[in-house]
This record gives sequence, C-alpha cells and structure tokens, in this order.
Amino acid sequence: MSLIRFNPWQSYYKHPFGAVKENGLARLSIEVIAEDILQVYLVMHKDHQPEQRIFMEKQEEGLYSYEYFFNQGKGLYFYHFEVHTKVNDQVFIEYYGASEQGGEGRLYDRPATIWDFQITCYQSAECTPDWYRNGVFYQIFPDRFYNGNPDKKVNSPKPNTFIYATEEDEPLYVKGSNGDILRWDFFGGNLQGIIKKIPYLKELGVTGIYLNPIFEACSNHRYDTSDYFKIDPVLGTEEDFKELIDALHINDMHLILDGVFSHVGQNSRYFNASGSYGTNIGAFQNRHSEYFSWFNFINYPQEYESWWGIKDLPEINKHDPEFQKFIFGEENSVLTKWNQFGVDGWRLDVADELPDEFIAGIRKNLNNYEDRVLIGEVWEDASNKVSYDVRREYILGDHLQGVMNYPLRDSAIDLLNEKSSPEQIAKSLTRLYENYPRDIFYNNLNNIGTHDTERILTMVGNHTKKLDLAFGFMFLSPGVPCIYYGDEAGLTGAKDPENRKFFPWNQMNREIYDSCRKWVERRNDYEVLVHGDLSFFFTDELFGILRRDGDEYVAALMNPTNYPKRVVEELTFIAEETPLIQEVRRRLTGRAVAENSYIFISSKEKKEKMERFHMNQEQLQLV
Amino acid sequence: MSLIRFNPWQSYYKHPFGAVKENGLARLSIEVIAEDILQVYLVMHKDHQPEQRIFMEKQEEGLYSYEYFFNQGKGLYFYHFEVHTKVNDQVFIEYYGASEQGGEGRLYDRPATIWDFQITCYQSAECTPDWYRNGVFYQIFPDRFYNGNPDKKVNSPKPNTFIYATEEDEPLYVKGSNGDILRWDFFGGNLQGIIKKIPYLKELGVTGIYLNPIFEACSNHRYDTSDYFKIDPVLGTEEDFKELIDALHINDMHLILDGVFSHVGQNSRYFNASGSYGTNIGAFQNRHSEYFSWFNFINYPQEYESWWGIKDLPEINKHDPEFQKFIFGEENSVLTKWNQFGVDGWRLDVADELPDEFIAGIRKNLNNYEDRVLIGEVWEDASNKVSYDVRREYILGDHLQGVMNYPLRDSAIDLLNEKSSPEQIAKSLTRLYENYPRDIFYNNLNNIGTHDTERILTMVGNHTKKLDLAFGFMFLSPGVPCIYYGDEAGLTGAKDPENRKFFPWNQMNREIYDSCRKWVERRNDYEVLVHGDLSFFFTDELFGILRRDGDEYVAALMNPTNYPKRVVEELTFIAEETPLIQEVRRRLTGRAVAENSYIFISSKEKKEKMERFHMNQEQLQLV
Repeated sequence: MSLIRFNPWQSYYKHPFGAVKENGLARLSIEVIAEDILQVYLVMHKDHQPEQRIFMEKQEEGLYSYEYFFNQGKGLYFYHFEVHTKVNDQVFIEYYGASEQGGEGRLYDRPATIWDFQITCYQSAECTPDWYRNGVFYQIFPDRFYNGNPDKKVNSPKPNTFIYATEEDEPLYVKGSNGDILRWDFFGGNLQGIIKKIPYLKELGVTGIYLNPIFEACSNHRYDTSDYFKIDPVLGTEEDFKELIDALHINDMHLILDGVFSHVGQNSRYFNASGSYGTNIGAFQNRHSEYFSWFNFINYPQEYESWWGIKDLPEINKHDPEFQKFIFGEENSVLTKWNQFGVDGWRLDVADELPDEFIAGIRKNLNNYEDRVLIGEVWEDASNKVSYDVRREYILGDHLQGVMNYPLRDSAIDLLNEKSSPEQIAKSLTRLYENYPRDIFYNNLNNIGTHDTERILTMVGNHTKKLDLAFGFMFLSPGVPCIYYGDEAGLTGAKDPENRKFFPWNQMNREIYDSCRKWVERRNDYEVLVHGDLSFFFTDELFGILRRDGDEYVAALMNPTNYPKRVVEELTFIAEETPLIQEVRRRLTGRAVAENSYIFISSKEKKEKMERFHMNQEQLQLV
Repeated sequence: MSLIRFNPWQSYYKHPFGAVKENGLARLSIEVIAEDILQVYLVMHKDHQPEQRIFMEKQEEGLYSYEYFFNQGKGLYFYHFEVHTKVNDQVFIEYYGASEQGGEGRLYDRPATIWDFQITCYQSAECTPDWYRNGVFYQIFPDRFYNGNPDKKVNSPKPNTFIYATEEDEPLYVKGSNGDILRWDFFGGNLQGIIKKIPYLKELGVTGIYLNPIFEACSNHRYDTSDYFKIDPVLGTEEDFKELIDALHINDMHLILDGVFSHVGQNSRYFNASGSYGTNIGAFQNRHSEYFSWFNFINYPQEYESWWGIKDLPEINKHDPEFQKFIFGEENSVLTKWNQFGVDGWRLDVADELPDEFIAGIRKNLNNYEDRVLIGEVWEDASNKVSYDVRREYILGDHLQGVMNYPLRDSAIDLLNEKSSPEQIAKSLTRLYENYPRDIFYNNLNNIGTHDTERILTMVGNHTKKLDLAFGFMFLSPGVPCIYYGDEAGLTGAKDPENRKFFPWNQMNREIYDSCRKWVERRNDYEVLVHGDLSFFFTDELFGILRRDGDEYVAALMNPTNYPKRVVEELTFIAEETPLIQEVRRRLTGRAVAENSYIFISSKEKKEKMERFHMNQEQLQLV
C-alpha cells in the first residue's frame, strides 16, 4: 500500500491557505510514497460542473503538484486525488479526499463516497470600513434595553397589548390554546433610552450598535413589519431616531439596522388583513392594491404563502420588481430613505431566504453611500449553504460583506461544556476559516448569543468563569465581536422569550461586567486581534487561539475543565512550525492554567504583567 | 269530582301574604265544592319534622279554614291539603299542593309527588338603616373604574403581572395550557380614581358604593386575599382608603365592602405557599403557624382542601375558633378594624358556603356599630336554599339582612328576550316575594349584572331600548338597586373577563346614561318605589309592575316585544281587585305601548306629563 498525505491547512500541501480570488492560482501538492506509481491525478470540479482529471507533476520523490488556475469564475471548487499504481501488472486506484474533521485527508474505497476538499473562489475582496472592522458591537433588542422617559411611561402603547408591571418581570408569551399569540407584551424600552445609555456603552468600549427592528409593527420584536417608513411609535419618533443617530456619530459610534425583507406582518400597511391601515390599501383587501404583486395568494384572500407557515407573516415574492424597487430602488425606497437618514449598515434578516439578486440589489443601493456595511443572518457555514436548492453566492463578492457567526458560538459552547475536544473545535473553526473568503471571515459579526439563542451565561451553566472564557473566545477570534445586550450584566435565560429580559440596570453583575469590559479593552489594545492571522492550538484538554501578524502576536490558552492543568503535553498547532510558534510553545509549556481560566500572552512586553495577573495562584492546585 | 281551589297569593285563601314571624298566625282557607265531604285536612310540617294532619273548619258552604300558630320556631313550614270524600260508601282522598308556577295550587295523584306550599317563618324583622334602604347603589370593580393618578401610572405594580396598554383594551386571561393563570392583568384603577369620580356618581344619583375586594391579593379581582389588614398597594394606601370613606360620607354616600372569608390566596400571609411573606409564617410552611388550624390539609403541605378545587384558593375551615376570632372577634379582628375605620357594611362573598354560625358572628360584630348593613351573595331563592346538605337560616333573622337578587336579573333577561311569558315572570318573582321575609326582600341588593355575569346590554342583544326596560325592571322592584359600573355607559361583554372592561370615560353612550339617570331620578322621586307593596300584572305579551302604599302608586307596563301593542286584553293582576287596581287598569286599558318601551303612570298628578313623554308617537304603529 501507498503512503499518501495531503493537508490543505499546511502551505507545503496547499498554497495559499483558504479561499482563492477569481483568476487566482493555488498550488496543490500531495505526498505519495508507493512503488510503481503510474499517475497521480487531481480530480477537480466546479460546483455543478463536470469533473476534470488533471495529471499532477512529480516535483521530487514522493511529491506531486499542480497549480490550479481558477478561471471558471466565482463559486465552489471541489477536489480529491487519485493515485494509480501498478502491482503485479494490475492497476490499482486509490482515492484520497477530505476527512470529516478537516485538515489532513484520508483514503476512500470508492469514488462515490468521497468527500471532496473545498476551495471557495470569490469574485472580489470585501473591504469594510475601519469603523466596522475595528469595531466592538452591541446588539440591542430595543423594547428591552432602557426606557428613556423620565416618568418611565411607555410611549404610545398599542391597543390590546400588555405592558410588564416591572422591569424585573420575566417575559412571557401570551398564547391561545392553538399557539397563536393573543397579545404582544412590552417593557417599553425606547430610542431615548438608548440615547441616554450611550455613556454606558462608551464606558464599556462599544463602538457600534446592531439594533433589532425598529419600524412600526404589531409585535415587540418587530420582525412583522407594518410600515418600513415609520419608526414604531412605542420606540419614539423619527426625530428621536435622528437624535440617536446624531448622538452615536458624535460619539464615534455607528448603527446597523435589522433589514427584514422576507415577509411583512399580516396587519401591515401592505397586506392589511384587519384593515388597520384603512380600507382598500392592502393586498388582502384589494386585488388592485399597489402591493398585490408582492404576495403569493393561493386562494385569494384567505390562503397565501407565509413565512414558515406563520399566517401572521405573509411571505413576500422577492423577485417581484415592484417590491425590489420599493426596498432598494434609487428613489424613494426604504434603503434610500434610511441610508440618507444616516444609518451605517444593515443586517439582513434570514439572508439565506433572500434571492442572491435581491441581496445584490440591496448592496448596490448601499454602494451609493460611503462606508456602509451589509451583513447577513446565516446560521451555518455560509460558503457552501444550499438554500431552496440553490447554492448561495452571497459571500463571493458584491453581496453580503459578512454574516452572523453562529458557528463560533456553537464552538465556544461545545468547548466550555466539554462536548467536543479542543482538537475538534480547532479543526471545525479552521475549516470555516478556510472556506470563507478571508475578508468575509474578518467581517463576520461574531456572537456568543443573540435574540434567537439561549443566553450564553445559561449555556455555560451560570458559571461566570466559563462566561469569561466565552467572551475571550469571541474577542480573540477574527470578525467583529457583538455583545448581546445584558450578556455583560448577568442576564440568563433559555430561548425566546427568556433571552429577551429587560436589562437589569439595578442588579448588574459587576464580576461579569468587568470580565466583558476587560476583553473589550484587549480588543482595542491589540491591533493583531483585528487583522492578525488565526491559528488554533491544543492539547487533549487545553484549547489555544493564536493571532499573529508579522512579529506581533497574541495567544490565549484556555482550560475549559473544572480542574487546574499544567501544560505538559506537546501543544499541537494547526500551522507550520515557525520561530514565532516555537516561541509561543516555549512560553506556554510547563505553565499551569487554573480551572475554567486561561493564560494570555502577547508579543508586547507590557502584557507580561497581565499574564501573571491572570494566573490566580490561590486557585491553583498544581497537577 | 270535587272543585278545590287555594291560592296563597290572595288574602281570601291565605292571610297574611308571605312569610310569618315566629309565634305569628296565618289563616289558611281552601275552597272545596264536592258532595259528601268527610273531612278537609291541612297537612303541615316544619322542615325536617314529622307532618301534622290538622282538621280544617268549615267556615261556610265550600270554605274550610285553619289558623296556624307558628310556635315551633323559625324555619320553613311546608303544607298541602287533603280532601276526603265518600262516594258510594268508598272513601276517596284528593291531594292538593303547590303548582310549579306558584299561586293557585293543583291536585296530585299520590302523596309522594306533592310539591308543598312554603311558608317562611322568621325570627326577627331585619330593619336596615334608611341610607341603605333608600339608596341607589353602584358596584365598582376597582381595577377597572378610574385611575386617579395624574400621570395615569399604575400604583406599585406587582412583579410578573401585566398592565393593559390602553384603557380601551379588552380584558384577557393569561392562562397556561392547563388553564392556570400565568399572569394577572391590571388596568390600574385605584381608590384615588373613585374619589375623583364621586362628582360623577353624585350626578348620576348614586348614594352608595359596593366595592369588590380591596385587600392585598395577587389577582386583579382580589378574591384571593393575601392580607385582610392591608389595602392592596395597587389600589392605594390606607390613607387613600380613609380619604375615600371620608369623601363618601361628606357626600352622604355610603360604602359596602366585599367580605371574602371562605378562602384565602395560596400566597397569602396565612397560607404563604411561595414564601412571599417570609419564612415560617404561613400554614403551608410551618405546622406551628398560628394559621395552621384554619386549613384542612389532606397530605401536608401539598394536598389541602381548596375552594372548588382551585389550588390557588385554600379553603378555610370556618368552624375554626381561631379563624372566627380573627375575622369577627371584638378585638383586633378584621371586621372590627374596618368597621371602626368607617366601612358601612359588608357583602359576604359566597355566603351560602359560610356556616350560619359564622354569619351570625359577623352580624354580631356589626351590631356593635350603628347603622351597618350585612348582605350575602346567594344566587337562588335564599329562603329554601340547601347548601352542603343543610337548610340555611341566613335570612331568618340575626344573620344576613338581604341577599344579592340574581333571580330578579334572570327574570328581567328572560322577559326582555321573550324566553318566558309575562305571566311566568310575574309568578316566579311573586313566589320569591312570598318566600322571603318582607324586610329581607326590601333589603335585597338588586342587580341586572355584576362582575360574575354577562353585561346586561349584551344579554339584551345590544338593544338600548331593552336596556332601558331592564333598568326599569330593577328600579321599579323592591330592594336596593345596584348599578354595575359601566352598565350606564354602554359597556358590553360576556362573562369574566369581558364583563370587567375598563370604564369607557371617553366614549360613554349618552342615550344609555340618560336612561339610567332617569330611572335613578324616579327612584328618588317616588317614595313608593322604596317601601310600596309589589304586584305584578300582565297580558299575554305585556308585563306590568305595580308598587303601592295606601293611595300612592306607581305602575309601569312594559312591552318587551319588537312590535307596538295596544292594551286590549284584560290586564291580569296578581292581587285582589281594589279600587286602586281598578284605577290602574282603567288608566292603562286601550293605550298603546311602543315596541321595547313602556308606559309609566303614577298617582302623582305631575307625572302625567312624563307618561305622555314616553309614548313616542313617531315610533308607534297602532295595532
């Protein structure tokens, strides 16, 4: 049998690392040690295209290479290898493809079962403005942050809704026996509240806000838009919103809005099922409504396509030119209005349910303005997501500039709960790093929790030291960290509605706040955390993140276990050995890491102190 | 066969009408026309006592009498008649008892099926103070009347409760899938709100308020008392309550509280299931709690007797001497505290679930104060109600002074919806009039709707003219009329929670208000409506109420149908013919009554004008 080895994460085998730009080159080399090698093939195909079987050149004894030219346009390229050998006058074929974990590949018996290696080929690099890429974001669910009214009254409460009696109340859905929402529930957070808390956010080190929807809607979450051109009166007025934008900009802060274009509310001005917007205006009431073409009626008007079958959310046909013009046309569109108003960017709700052409249209509108940002909601590896049977192109250029990084959150949680080994975590995130165009990866809006997930503190068993590690995981990773409001204050809770409690202004957990603030500070102190390359390293139980840029580096070695550990095993790096890596290994080897704690080292001399500080000797019981 | 006739509603057959006082006499006479009468017997028994078979004396041909002496004490006496005749040397027995409708009786085949006539024998007359008997009451569900805070904020909202967004919201129970209340819902009406609306109530002509519970509790209805000694902070403070009482008294108005002593809330200070009142205080937490003896634990502490099986309302053992002392002892009791505070009376919640001795104890406490009133919640004919296998004595003296008159409401609704004939209504209410001690009947707190029933406007199909008749029905009847807040303003709704909407201050129905106010005015103008005797009269379709006292009278003839009617049939009176009745008949005969309207006449000359006013000629199409 032959010895065959290929690992796309090492430049000896593949160069450059990761995604490749259109018309770029990638050198692929495979080690093959065998007798009577007839031929080594690179078997490459572009997504949905036929395979090319390419002869690889023997570079030296045991090494076969090919420099592939990505001239078939952006998209995903998949490849594996075939090694043909001759044994006793018989030809044998060995198939070598990707392993499930990523990194070094493995042999396969039959071609049908091969899992190919992936190379993402992108059209253009997605630069984002410095304010974004250098930023520290903060996600606000506006009803639950702060009520800026001196008397704490709720602005313009909606008829037949409930107001929570106190800000400490636990959110609760008011549902009927069939599961329908009977009443929406409000705490009464508002735009003036956010304005009043800008000093708090500044103090924390936040530079950008991602706001959950703020346009008029029936619900408290406002994903059921009623009017794209109107600030929800419960949150305030258009003047309040202007004041918020101005106040943020004066404070060098920026604002990203939630763009919800996949569906609207059934009681929206556009659908108007209950006639709240008068008669004859909405598609439900009038086939001649200007909005009629937005919707797909199956049996007019009662049966219509709705988002995930929720009748409250009529689905929109995003291919409808009228709708497209309404959302992102140059004149009088939703995007134009709010971009001109001063909004700095958009996070597209359910981006994977918006057609690529729709996302491109939004991007085109944004390109008319300086320094705007477009991020999408995607929960999985966005590079190879198939949505509605179509491979999506939204991270290959001129579409999204980044996505919400939920895989990061999953990894942090799995690591801290010891559900996956450090090696598994390291490899799965390296694969993401490999699959995303580099700029996209660095533009990702990272999170360890959002309005759609359980609270991170709850996910780590209310363990504040684990939460400290989770913050570290996010702040040490490439991409823009985004703190979900209240995660820094000790909020807990399972999924919606528990994850949407009101900010606990009167009972903040200072330990947690200090932990979060310290990580924000580091993010701002170490330029390398923004731009540096990423490498993971690990032992059986310890997990490390290395960021480096030339001679500069920052490394953190985390101990997610409940026991102190000393670094006695060899640290494995997902990277080639370099003097820098040897230095990091040397500096860490032999050191002790307290349980649920970490060692932080960096190339900056001044940080040596901090390193000692975080080794809390009292808590250490040496292994 | 014989001709036998007896009608306890005519003085020819029975004198006096109705109930008899202890040691009083009643003459019973029966007409019997038959050949060969051997004997006529009065078969009388006191409730639960053996029958007495009494010879009746022949007064004249065909009339047999007996004067019964009620010397066996208070209680119910039941009787029927036996007529023994001899035909062809054989003795036949005919049985004569009560008919189902009331009034004239009927023959029965067998003694086992006889329905006896009833005579209620009471111990003492229940005089109530003039402020009560002459009063016009108004029932307020305090959370839903008016918020007296200038900023309309809710006082001390309870944690994990909901506040309605607007006063126009429709009340809704927030229930879990198992039917349990998940959250209580508040509008925020309060005591200061009632104080601020005293001018409104004065203008309407109200002289007394019956307030639903106001002591600290978890719910919005407060029937789950938490602390009998504390005003619920959502409603205000003890000072607010004092201010309310003083303001009412200054305005010659009086206040009756809701006394809820059958059960408490599980989170009360006394039971304290969730420890809201600290540790070790409640019976649920501590077998040595001073309140332990109040409750019946089946399996301590999780299983206990509760009101109608509602775990939230632990049932109280009203025989417990400690509880009795707590509620109505001379010193430091609940009754003593609030009576001294200035409360003018009590309406006992579920009075039929309180033992007679308990009610007597409350009454005894009240007797220590001047001019107080005790009314009970009973839904049926309170004279012969059996509750927990015991015949109740609460209207026979020294217990309740009156009950809430729900049968009146049922009759009004049945009449106006033409579910029962005028004759049926007249008879069923005459039977109630007959069964109740006269003072009790005149002390009844009459209603056409409460917090426990559908709104009257809803019950009459949102028909404002029928509502006018319903108000008339109540204001013309003996007893103290009690308007359920908002009935005069046009509130609608089915049972709880719909019957507890917030008072529509901004959208009052003036037509309805004017109708109600007019009836209040009449009540105050005509003394005879307070004290006068009651007689009903009717045709097939028209229903009349006559109140008279000597020469004074008021009579209203109502047409509950949707067509105008002329009085052409003879009016049948449940009363003996007297000159007064002949006058009423003469004045009404031949006149037209508009659909859903009435004719109002009285012995006062000046009222003749009003009579013409109410014959809206335009609406009349003469029959």
